[in-house]
Order: sequence, then structure tokens, then C-alpha cells
Amino acid sequence: MPIFSFDDLMEMPSRYRGNLLNKVSGIKPANLIATISKERKSNLAIFNSVVHIGANPPYLGFVLRPTTVERHTYENIKETGVYTINQITTEIHKKAHQTSAKYERGVSEFERVGLTEEYYANFKAPFVKESTIKIALEFEEEHLIKCNDTRLIIGKITQLQLPDNCIAANGDINLEHLDCVGIGGLDSYYSVQKLGTYTYAKP
Amino acid sequence: MPIFSFDDLMEMPSRYRGNLLNKVSGIKPANLIATISKERKSNLAIFNSVVHIGANPPYLGFVLRPTTVERHTYENIKETGVYTINQITTEIHKKAHQTSAKYERGVSEFERVGLTEEYYANFKAPFVKESTIKIALEFEEEHLIKCNDTRLIIGKITQLQLPDNCIAANGDINLEHLDCVGIGGLDSYYSVQKLGTYTYAKP
Repeated sequence: MPIFSFDDLMEMPSRYRGNLLNKVSGIKPANLIATISKERKSNLAIFNSVVHIGANPPYLGFVLRPTTVERHTYENIKETGVYTINQITTEIHKKAHQTSAKYERGVSEFERVGLTEEYYANFKAPFVKESTIKIALEFEEEHLIKCNDTRLIIGKITQLQLPDNCIAANGDINLEHLDCVGIGGLDSYYSVQKLGTYTYAKP
Repeated sequence: MPIFSFDDLMEMPSRYRGNLLNKVSGIKPANLIATISKERKSNLAIFNSVVHIGANPPYLGFVLRPTTVERHTYENIKETGVYTINQITTEIHKKAHQTSAKYERGVSEFERVGLTEEYYANFKAPFVKESTIKIALEFEEEHLIKCNDTRLIIGKITQLQLPDNCIAANGDINLEHLDCVGIGGLDSYYSVQKLGTYTYAKP
């Protein structure tokens, strides 16, 4: 197997290096983050960086690119303190990908890509009606990553919505029955097939 | 769809809540992190929280649970400053799962689960011979997450090893040809099938 050194990686053309390095960590979760501005303009953006932070109490994190360019998701979360994370399914993955286009501020990606915003339980931020797992979060804390000015944003789960009868007796969810997709790099989408579920490992 | 409030989630039995909340973000990357102590005892641990931080220069992050219990991966990284991230394939996913068992300090999971440690290019930490994507990293920075004492650990990629001929002309990697798996929650493993690759989205 060929070995690329740090210098080899840095000498690659920028787009080539981006394609390669966005894939080396493997398959990633596929989520849509929905927010709303003070002026009640909704925003919808695809993220492949949502990460489990804790279950007790429940927290999720995600990584946000540097805020040197406009980042509507970040601005809206800072303005309102709330957002939603919505699972991407095979059915909506092409529409979800289209949210990554650079729309102007004030244009709602919901409308442009053909997804439906929905509001309930007095929560300020919109949910994606077509998603199978919908999570409401309150902003909890952020960390500015010094090496490249990205940010880790952490939120507390305040509401969780799942389809009827998809939760097993032990709390497990069958992701494959919920039609979840995974993302490779920035532009490839994958369906998933279960290999197995294994017991808590012991020495 | 039923809605669970924050209070509903907190009232669930601990293991049930853990199973549920570890799955709500969708499919996760499957990696083995390998380290070595000052005394040259190797350690291997499965992680489902590796996240892309940047490509220029190349950085990866991962989330580490609270260090109140022994965390050999963390201690070894702090001692030596280096570690490797190795892709889990369908072929080795059961062995990878077994690394999550609580072995005593000084016991090498490589030996116990039947994976092969390999060293090259003068890099101090071991690689997993059976993995298809192998990444050497130098510790860069860490962030203590205040809400629950987890940590985000960030490393700079100093070497990257991939099989011959798996990189396309644009830098893209075919994860499905590399036999990559995804993880659901803490205990379920998935193979992946490509749905499509789409062009850079434009409004």
C-alpha cells in the first residue's frame, strides 16, 4: 500500500485533497439541521458531522466550518438558542444534498429543495416533515477549534420524535427500517444493511 | 409519531435510554484507534465518533468518554503524542467489537481479539494490519466538554495509507470497494451500498 506523508498530502491540489481526506474516516451520519432567524426566516443545511456526546443527560454535537463566510445555521442558533437535527432517508437524500448550495440569506432551503417545514409542541425551530427521526435541541456550549477555526456546537436534546413501533423492547432502533442513509465524503450517499448486533463485549 | 420530552427521556431506564440515544444521530463511522504506552504496551479500542475537522491542513477529531474510569487510549496519547486511526471492514468487524471489552491495563487487545499490530516509517504507534485505511496522527489539541466531561481530541494526519488503485482521478475513494462498515448505536454493524454521487450543489 502506498504511504502519503504530511508533505505529500499538502502538495495535492486542494479539491483532490478535500475529496480524499473527507473520506478517510469512513461512512458518516446524514442529517439536516434546521434553524430559524429572529426575522422568522427558516434555514436548512446538510451536515455529516453529528456526533453523540452523551445520553444522561442527552447531548449531541456537530462540527461547523469556519465562520469567515456566512454561516446561517450558526447565526440562527446564536440568535434563537434552538435548532433541530433531522435524519436523512434514501427517499429525501437528493433534496438533502441540494441544501448544500449557497443560497442567499433569507432564501429558505425548505422551499428551494422541496422539503416541508413543520412546527409543533411550541418549539421555535422548524422540523423536516419527511424525516424519520426528528430531534429538538437547545444550544448548550461551543468550542472554537484553534488549529483551523472550526467549531464544535453542542446541544441538549429537549424533544425526540420517532415513528410508532420502531423502538425495540431494549430501546434499540432499527436504522435500516427507518431508511437511514450514510454519507461518504461530501458527495456520495449510501444505504445500509445490517451485518449483526452483538452483545456487550467481555474479556 | 410519539414525541418524547426531555423529562420522558430522563425517566427511561439507563440502558434503554443509552441504546435509544446512541442511535438517533444515524449511522456512524467505524474505526479502531491504536496507541502504545511509554512501556511499549500496545492498546486497541473501537470508536464510532471520529469526525472530519479539516483537510488543509488535514485534521481528524474523536470524542472520548469521561476519564473517571481508566482510559488507556487517552493516557497513551498524552504520554506519546501519537496514535493511529484504522478503518473497520466487514471482515474484521466482530474482532473490532470485541476490543470494547474491559481488559486490564497492560493486556494488548491486538493479541486478545486476533488482530495484527504493525509498525512502519518510524512511527511510534501501531497500525492495524487488517485495516484498509490506516492513518497516523499527532495529537494537536483537546477540548473538555463542560456539560458532561467528555473530551474532543484532535490530531494532525502525518501519514495516510490506502490500498493501491483505490483513489479515483479526483481524489475520491470508493468506500464500498474498501469494504467499510458503519455502526448503529453501540452494538450494530452495517455494510454500505452506494446510492449515488452528486455534483457540487448550486442554487
